[in-house]
Amino acid sequence: MPTFSDRLAEAVRAKGPLCVGLDPRWESLPKSHRETAKPEEPEYAARAVQQFCVRVMELVQPFTGVVKPQAAFFELLGPPGLQVLKIVIERAKEMGFVTILDAKRGDIASTATAYADAAFSGCNIDSKTFPVWDADALTINPYLGRDAVEPFLTAAKKADRGVFVLVRTSNPGAGLFQDLVCNGKPVYRHVAAEVAKWNASTIGACGLGDVGAVVGATHLKELAELRDAMPDVWLLVPGYGAQGGTAADVKAAYRADGLGAIVNSSRGVTFPFHPDDPDWEAKIGAAAQKAQAELRQ
Amino acid sequence: MPTFSDRLAEAVRAKGPLCVGLDPRWESLPKSHRETAKPEEPEYAARAVQQFCVRVMELVQPFTGVVKPQAAFFELLGPPGLQVLKIVIERAKEMGFVTILDAKRGDIASTATAYADAAFSGCNIDSKTFPVWDADALTINPYLGRDAVEPFLTAAKKADRGVFVLVRTSNPGAGLFQDLVCNGKPVYRHVAAEVAKWNASTIGACGLGDVGAVVGATHLKELAELRDAMPDVWLLVPGYGAQGGTAADVKAAYRADGLGAIVNSSRGVTFPFHPDDPDWEAKIGAAAQKAQAELRQ
Repeated sequence: MPTFSDRLAEAVRAKGPLCVGLDPRWESLPKSHRETAKPEEPEYAARAVQQFCVRVMELVQPFTGVVKPQAAFFELLGPPGLQVLKIVIERAKEMGFVTILDAKRGDIASTATAYADAAFSGCNIDSKTFPVWDADALTINPYLGRDAVEPFLTAAKKADRGVFVLVRTSNPGAGLFQDLVCNGKPVYRHVAAEVAKWNASTIGACGLGDVGAVVGATHLKELAELRDAMPDVWLLVPGYGAQGGTAADVKAAYRADGLGAIVNSSRGVTFPFHPDDPDWEAKIGAAAQKAQAELRQ
Repeated sequence: MPTFSDRLAEAVRAKGPLCVGLDPRWESLPKSHRETAKPEEPEYAARAVQQFCVRVMELVQPFTGVVKPQAAFFELLGPPGLQVLKIVIERAKEMGFVTILDAKRGDIASTATAYADAAFSGCNIDSKTFPVWDADALTINPYLGRDAVEPFLTAAKKADRGVFVLVRTSNPGAGLFQDLVCNGKPVYRHVAAEVAKWNASTIGACGLGDVGAVVGATHLKELAELRDAMPDVWLLVPGYGAQGGTAADVKAAYRADGLGAIVNSSRGVTFPFHPDDPDWEAKIGAAAQKAQAELRQ
C-alpha cells in the first residue's frame, strides 16, 4: 500500500485540495431525512444521519477525494451514532475517499495507544484483530507532549496511516495559549517545530510526510509562516467557507508544486440549504463544485 | 441537586480522596471473564468488560466515592464497547458514585457543544432529549483556547456538572509544551490562571468550584505550586500508584480543610493481580482498602 501522504497526494492531484467535512447536525438535516427517522430516537436518527452522509459523499465525489467525519456529531447520537461513524468511514473508503477522522484525541502511554489502535489497526482480542474506526488519518492534540504523541505516530506508521497534529486552530480564541511567546516564538511555532521533526522520517514519494498539521485559514500571517516552517508537512486547513476564510486566503498553504494542503469545508458544502428545501441535493453538488473550482484556481 | 463540587465534597468526606480509574484492558482481565467472552468478538469482549467493571465497582465501593472510566479503552472495543461505557456510568451512578468521564475532549464552537452535550445533558432529537454518557464530570484539553473551553463550561453549568481541565499531566514528556516559559511563567501556569478564573463563578457550599484541574502527582514542585495558584479549584491527581506517585507525594494537593483533591489510581487498584489468579476479587478489595487508608492519613 502507498504511504498515507502518497495516497493523499494522489487524491489531491486527481480532484484538488478540497476536503469535505462530515458534521451531521440533526437539526440541519433535510426534512425528508428527519421525517423517515420517526420515532425520534437515537437509533432512527443515527440511521438518517448514515443515509445523509452516504448521499453527501455520492454528491461530492466528483469534486473531492478526501472526507473528514467529525467524531463529536456522531458521538452525540450515542453508541448508535458511533456505529454509523464506523459505517460511514467504511463506505467512504469503498468509494475511494481518503478518510480523516477528526476526533482531536490526546492521552498518554497505553491510553494513547488504545485511541490510536481504535483509529487505525483495530482491537486485538486474543489472537484476532477487529477494525474499529479504520480511518486513513486522525487529528490529535499535542498539549500532553512527546510521549503522548508518540503512540499515535507509532500506530500510524505500523498501519500506513497519518496523523494531523493541532498547531494553530481556526477559532477566534485560539491564541489564548497557542500565541503565548516563549524563547522568542509563540507556542504554536514550538509545536510546529516538533511536528516538522516527527514528520521528517515519514516522507513519501510525493515529498511530503505522514505527520500533518492543522492550521486554520482564519489567521493568514500564521498560515504563510507555518507553510515555511514545515515545508514537508501536509497542512489540514479548516476555516474556509462558513468560518470566513476565502480561496485567496488559503493560497499561502500550498507548496510551489501545488501539493501540501487540503482545505476543509463542512457546513459550506454539506449544509448549503434550508432543511425544508427539496433541492438540497443539487445545492450540495453545486457547493462542492464551486469550492473545487475556487480552490483549484 | 447540589452542585458538582458539593457532590464531590460529600463523596470525599464520606470515603476519602481516592478516585478509582476504570481502564479495562482486555489482556489484563481475569481469565475467568475472558473465557466467558468466547467467541472472541468485540460484542462478547465488551460484555466481559461490563461485568468486570461492575464487579470492580462493587469491590471498591466501601473505599471510594468516585470512579473515572477512561473512554479510550471502551472506544477500542468499538460501538459495543461504547455501549458498555454508557451502561457502566449508569450503574456507577445508581451505586452512588460520582462519575468522571476521562475523555480529554477538546474542539471549537458547536463541535465542542456536541461533545459537551454528549457528556452531560444528552442529545436533542426534535422535542426529546436522550442521555448519552451522562457523567458527573468530563476531562477536557485546553490547547484550543477560550472559545473551545466555554461550550463545556456552559453545558456543565446548565446540567450541574463539572469539568477537569488538563493543566499539568503526569507523563514524563509532559513538559515539551506545558513547561515552555512565557512572560516569566510556564504555559501550564497560564492555563492554571485561566482555570482559576473560569472556576471563580462556580464556587459551591464546600468552598470549591465546578471547574477542576488535572495535575499529575509525578511533578511534586508543580503540585504544591498549583495548589496555591488555584485555591478554590478541585485537583484531579493522576500518577499515584502504578505511575510512581506516593501518598506522601500527593499531600501537597489537599487544602487545609482536607478537601480540594481527588487522587486517581487505575491499574494499582483494578489490576493488582495476574489474569490467572483466582483471588483477583480479594486483591482488588485489599488494594482499594490500602489506597484509601494511605490517602486518608
